[in-house]
Amino acid sequence: MQTSIRNHLKGKIKTILQGDVVSEIEVETPAGTVTSVITTNSVRRLNLKAGDDVYAVVKATEVSIEKD
Amino acid sequence: MQTSIRNHLKGKIKTILQGDVVSEIEVETPAGTVTSVITTNSVRRLNLKAGDDVYAVVKATEVSIEKD
Amino acid sequence: MQTSIRNHLKGKIKTILQGDVVSEIEVETPAGTVTSVITTNSVRRLNLKAGDDVYAVVKATEVSIEKD
Amino acid sequence: MQTSIRNHLKGKIKTILQGDVVSEIEVETPAGTVTSVITTNSVRRLNLKAGDDVYAVVKATEVSIEKD
Amino acid sequence: MQTSIRNHLKGKIKTILQGDVVSEIEVETPAGTVTSVITTNSVRRLNLKAGDDVYAVVKATEVSIEKD
Amino acid sequence: MQTSIRNHLKGKIKTILQGDVVSEIEVETPAGTVTSVITTNSVRRLNLKAGDDVYAVVKATEVSIEKD
Repeated sequence: MQTSIRNHLKGKIKTILQGDVVSEIEVETPAGTVTSVITTNSVRRLNLKAGDDVYAVVKATEVSIEKD
Repeated sequence: MQTSIRNHLKGKIKTILQGDVVSEIEVETPAGTVTSVITTNSVRRLNLKAGDDVYAVVKATEVSIEKD
Repeated sequence: MQTSIRNHLKGKIKTILQGDVVSEIEVETPAGTVTSVITTNSVRRLNLKAGDDVYAVVKATEVSIEKD
Repeated sequence: MQTSIRNHLKGKIKTILQGDVVSEIEVETPAGTVTSVITTNSVRRLNLKAGDDVYAVVKATEVSIEKD
Repeated sequence: MQTSIRNHLKGKIKTILQGDVVSEIEVETPAGTVTSVITTNSVRRLNLKAGDDVYAVVKATEVSIEKD
Repeated sequence: MQTSIRNHLKGKIKTILQGDVVSEIEVETPAGTVTSVITTNSVRRLNLKAGDDVYAVVKATEVSIEKD
């Protein structure tokens, strides 16, 4: 399966904060920690847990740019 | 100024594809290339050009997770 | 590869309006036409064309609800 | 009222998972189940409940494309 | 029709920058200018033009907070 | 630090509904109340509380237009 989504950052899950409907996942990547909020049902369906190798995935239109 | 936005990936602009209304920016980061789509007016306002040190910025609710 | 993204609507590409940086894709699904805006570079990379069988993919946090 | 939002998928609410701040709504559509995350305050304000006829609404820039 | 979308800012269109696929709309509101990027097909379908009374509409999950 | 993000609406926090993973913030602006959903960890990190002067921040691609 190919996807139009441009950004796939490889990393390892550091922490999962599981909530009633959504959960916060911290992924350690070579560019630093990337934080994701997904449904808790997806956490269960993918059986995500600390230490898993994953990708943090982001559509290009969601990325902004900052400059000093 | 502090921001609630969780993800700020440090990198360097590799390419800018400038369009009539929006532009595509490729940022080289330690986690690989991150692609952003922002308004061409922001490209001009920030005077973005290849080689600039920037941050790719993403709200946590926009980040999904993939697992092999 | 498994994804946390909840929504994958099967359909067939009806039209592609190709722009300089982003393109508009209309996908015919059993629930009606679904319109997507992705980068033109992704249209080329996936070699998308009218008639292709595809999925329209949406993160759950991007879906709102309307009621009469 | 007319809206610029391109995608309105007609369906019926199958389940509501009500959380403290956000809730997950599953909408049965002719293209399969569409999952939405909205504020619990909106669930109350619209008095949403299983069986309601609703539309799942998505801005075109939030829709990605996958292809086999 | 009721919507789960929480933010509707009343204003008047100041400028439209029409592109091949997407367009930039500047809306003058009591809180300052709000900029929107929508498909050019929606600009045509709603027959948007400078001076129109409109609402700038945003899902709550898309709003971040900054503090000095 | 300069940002590509186009929309920064000045206001004052009216209410915070703190959840287990995400929280809802209502910001009073000259254009009316703007509602935001951010992570509860950001609420703590920025030490947000009712009465704080803040900005509600939105990327232009997330803003839709409605017209009567």
